[in-house]
Amino acid sequence: MRHGVDGERLWARLMAMAEIGATSGGGSCRQALSDMDEAGRKLFLGWCEARGYRVRKDRVGNLFVRRPGSDPAATPVLIGSHLDTQPTGGRFDGVLGVLAGLEVLETLDDRTVETDRPIDLCVWTNEEGCRFQPAMMGSGVACGLLDLETTLAARDGGGITLADEINRHGYDGEPMPGLPDADCYIELHIEQGPILEAEAKTIGVVTGGQGIRWYEISVVGEETHAGPVPMALRKDPVPMLMHVIGLVQAIGRTDEAARCTIGKIELSPGAINVVPGRADMTVDLRHPDKAVLDKMHQRFMDGLDALRQGHAEIDLQGRLTWHSPVIAFDRVLIEAVRTSARERGLTHRDIVSGAGHDAFNLARRVPTTMIFVPCRDGVSHNPREYAAPADVAAGASVLLDVALARARAMIPLAGEFATPA
Amino acid sequence: MRHGVDGERLWARLMAMAEIGATSGGGSCRQALSDMDEAGRKLFLGWCEARGYRVRKDRVGNLFVRRPGSDPAATPVLIGSHLDTQPTGGRFDGVLGVLAGLEVLETLDDRTVETDRPIDLCVWTNEEGCRFQPAMMGSGVACGLLDLETTLAARDGGGITLADEINRHGYDGEPMPGLPDADCYIELHIEQGPILEAEAKTIGVVTGGQGIRWYEISVVGEETHAGPVPMALRKDPVPMLMHVIGLVQAIGRTDEAARCTIGKIELSPGAINVVPGRADMTVDLRHPDKAVLDKMHQRFMDGLDALRQGHAEIDLQGRLTWHSPVIAFDRVLIEAVRTSARERGLTHRDIVSGAGHDAFNLARRVPTTMIFVPCRDGVSHNPREYAAPADVAAGASVLLDVALARARAMIPLAGEFATPA
Repeated sequence: MRHGVDGERLWARLMAMAEIGATSGGGSCRQALSDMDEAGRKLFLGWCEARGYRVRKDRVGNLFVRRPGSDPAATPVLIGSHLDTQPTGGRFDGVLGVLAGLEVLETLDDRTVETDRPIDLCVWTNEEGCRFQPAMMGSGVACGLLDLETTLAARDGGGITLADEINRHGYDGEPMPGLPDADCYIELHIEQGPILEAEAKTIGVVTGGQGIRWYEISVVGEETHAGPVPMALRKDPVPMLMHVIGLVQAIGRTDEAARCTIGKIELSPGAINVVPGRADMTVDLRHPDKAVLDKMHQRFMDGLDALRQGHAEIDLQGRLTWHSPVIAFDRVLIEAVRTSARERGLTHRDIVSGAGHDAFNLARRVPTTMIFVPCRDGVSHNPREYAAPADVAAGASVLLDVALARARAMIPLAGEFATPA
Repeated sequence: MRHGVDGERLWARLMAMAEIGATSGGGSCRQALSDMDEAGRKLFLGWCEARGYRVRKDRVGNLFVRRPGSDPAATPVLIGSHLDTQPTGGRFDGVLGVLAGLEVLETLDDRTVETDRPIDLCVWTNEEGCRFQPAMMGSGVACGLLDLETTLAARDGGGITLADEINRHGYDGEPMPGLPDADCYIELHIEQGPILEAEAKTIGVVTGGQGIRWYEISVVGEETHAGPVPMALRKDPVPMLMHVIGLVQAIGRTDEAARCTIGKIELSPGAINVVPGRADMTVDLRHPDKAVLDKMHQRFMDGLDALRQGHAEIDLQGRLTWHSPVIAFDRVLIEAVRTSARERGLTHRDIVSGAGHDAFNLARRVPTTMIFVPCRDGVSHNPREYAAPADVAAGASVLLDVALARARAMIPLAGEFATPA
């Protein structure tokens, strides 16, 4: 059998990191740039410093941990992920990619393997987007897809800006290095879906990512008392909410690869005995094929138009607030993942990422791919999120293989960047 | 024409009170026992003290302002309403009944009219129920329908107890007088519905009140990431929410007098890219006929059962959390309102109260009735809430007539208490 990473060390660190911001039920809450996120980063940086790795920080708090290569002119191989979590986060989402990346660096050191290229382990700030919007913020800024000043001005629900937190944690002292001129980017992640587990595959060879579109829907009627006004005379936004839910569900049924989610609903003023004057909701549409996603978008807009015309008493508005294009990963890197899995005797299948990842931003700048491992019941963003130790170690070893192959420059790259859809 | 109240003085005071907790759009926010509510009470008490009326306060902050009668053995006529508002309250809901009551006392003084019975003007604490639950709290305790200690332990959304606020405002110094042994209770209020305005009637002769039932519905599925999990494998509570909205709307269409409202919906964790694990909603069902309301309740429970059986992957729970029975007001007092309107040449019609009122609690203890005046567009619990000065004065004069007739003991009472349904 081929040598791999130290699975026990990796597992112990995953469990140690989970204690930072531990929640009942076994999950973690380390929302981006909170005290808990910062504590998690300090734990991680302690491990890096113990091995003497040089760490750089940029203006949005992205961390770059370098294991040097022997060729001073060679561009680095980037690996990594994120340490922040959802409020109801688990122990593996993001954290696995970062700690497996550290495991890659240390395994090379433990075996005194010299590489031509340096390897930079990246920790991206605010991948989750639950506290500060948009998601995948740190990699977005690093890749030049988000404006730095606009990003620093983003506010959380309590009115605190990203800049406030960046300053508080001392990330503003150094100039922004930006994305290093890099050879490629490879990210290991849990699948966050049920497919690998259902088919008993250890490795997901990720060929690309779904396009994502986010919408805000507002339904404005007229607030009134719950008792006196007859149903027929009300301008109640709630029945319209029902129609919009139905529309979104119908779009989700048109194609097996479609994903449609309503994650937030708010009624105003939100009192048991008041017919709400307003309802707000979010909609998240995803599909791996741009043409189908375009059709879903059009069907959604047309559906809202039809609802609007059928209910003149209600003001229904829907607008696209953010999108992430359909992503195709680098063909050579994809093949390198497939080869590693095959050579290690690991079951594997091609898979499309349903979730958004920092790798989607990187893919617009450098050759990129991802490696997935199964997670139990497909559950993620939840304290129940779980990946088996053997799968975690297998994924980290595939990451090691692909990073090492690139850092030694043994596989040619397709030379094609992923094409944003 | 018969003498009535001083409409200009009453209007000026309504406008002065509206400045306390004034909100943009012309409304007021004086949630129960907040600083603004207390400031409104102080303004009111200043007016009472200027006329030398004795004021008593009970353990939940109800105020009783007495104009004495000549017969020391006679029980008082109670009039009144409340000064607290919804967060998005208007200038008339509750306030009208209190300030018109003060106008009754002062008009009798201005004209040096002596009555046999004392008249007690009541200001009930926390009628609205938006900050502390349940609604109609002060009158509920006074009428022995709510337990005092349980009520004092009620907490607002920030964890502050009613007792904290009672102590802070100094209402805990005196023993609780309870509801005085009273002759009757009469409350003037805006209709909070569109019927009087639509039919161009000045006085609503209120014959009783709708029964009200409140429910909490929880829908528990499984939280997961918005991208990877196929629609068919999700345990998403949102489609179930759609079915429950549809059920509630269908119940609202079965009978013209039915009122069905969903005032609150909350998705947890409530993030744009997370399939929620849980949805919570409130339902408010009302009808003036107990038999029909019972049928609506049964239909709702049966509907939830059917939904539950059709969606085994989702845990759907619904429970009745509070109810207010169908109320029939006192026949003699109702006739006294009708007589006053007729003799004053005011257009009037019988009407059922769609909203809950402190009068519903009082009706379970003493002969009770209400007088309604129109409000523009039927809008209430909203800054746009408006009643015309002439209608406000007309309603106050009818209140004067009925209170005066009872305080002089010129009309016999039916001797029947309202029967809780």
